[in-house]
Amino acid sequence: MYVPTMKIYQKRDFPVSEIRRFLEPGPVVLVSSAWKGERNIMTMGWHMVMEFTPSLVGCLISSGNHSYELVSRSKECVINIPTLDLARTVVKIGNCSGAEVDKFTAFKLTAHEAEQVRAPLIAQCYANLECKLVDGRLRDRYNVFIFEVVKAHAAAAPKYPKTIHYRGDGQFMVAGRSLNLRKLFRAGML
Amino acid sequence: MYVPTMKIYQKRDFPVSEIRRFLEPGPVVLVSSAWKGERNIMTMGWHMVMEFTPSLVGCLISSGNHSYELVSRSKECVINIPTLDLARTVVKIGNCSGAEVDKFTAFKLTAHEAEQVRAPLIAQCYANLECKLVDGRLRDRYNVFIFEVVKAHAAAAPKYPKTIHYRGDGQFMVAGRSLNLRKLFRAGML
Repeated sequence: MYVPTMKIYQKRDFPVSEIRRFLEPGPVVLVSSAWKGERNIMTMGWHMVMEFTPSLVGCLISSGNHSYELVSRSKECVINIPTLDLARTVVKIGNCSGAEVDKFTAFKLTAHEAEQVRAPLIAQCYANLECKLVDGRLRDRYNVFIFEVVKAHAAAAPKYPKTIHYRGDGQFMVAGRSLNLRKLFRAGML
Repeated sequence: MYVPTMKIYQKRDFPVSEIRRFLEPGPVVLVSSAWKGERNIMTMGWHMVMEFTPSLVGCLISSGNHSYELVSRSKECVINIPTLDLARTVVKIGNCSGAEVDKFTAFKLTAHEAEQVRAPLIAQCYANLECKLVDGRLRDRYNVFIFEVVKAHAAAAPKYPKTIHYRGDGQFMVAGRSLNLRKLFRAGML
């Protein structure tokens, strides 16, 4: 049994063109948003990197979520990368509605001000990606939003965060060991 | 140092509405395709689940890849889920072109016949998802293909495969331990 000890990560600026490092391995993320004095957090597992420059991310926010309105109206969000110490909080956030509760208060999370968006950063997450909506064409049909990451913040340590990855059915996979296969890559293919 | 020992997984039919189990944790996958007697395999890290029923997957196949033509013309592919024993092969597949080599032969992979598509299944992968293109509207702009998984095959053992997850820069994360948080979910939210 692990004991949750949420800590605030010390972060520095991170190049937006390199945020695949955090998203491509496929962790569950927390999406924070804000609109007209209201703020919210949702748990999200369906996302993909789409381009390095501009730094594009596609993701799915179901219209049944309270965050759908906040993100649609503000055209902004922050994608926050939680680690193992937040696992229980991540599940609880996904199992209640922002229509009924302020999740920052309810789950003792710290909202830090972002630089380029009004949505708040979650200080207890390993990385924070400030996003602006660039294409909403697939929203009505698929609930898919395409964002550009306009500013990124990430912790310098640990080098490889213990992210959590959802398999469905209440089961998560925790990020395991690292494997360096650089030598097998051709130049320019990394 | 691990020794690669590629094995052929014994598979059974798997419900297409539950393939999030394999894709949502974010592993790197192998996409196989075929068109007019030619076949190919590409390594892909940018994908996301989009719907349970129909079982939709969005993914990015760059127009610079040889597979782009095969998938575009056939409107089909198979998404294959490799495990750790295939890690070096996965990287090598991503670092050569199907225009120059038949990758099944070059990497000693076994092509099994699919049921609903002409693209071959890779027998050495843990799971195989037969896919048909359902929406190509984002292809020209983003290289994004939206597929429906029409048939799925998966190994029954091990229960949780040691998938590999790409961080960029030649670095992979290997799937680690499992974490069961079912008790924290509300009914209907799993």
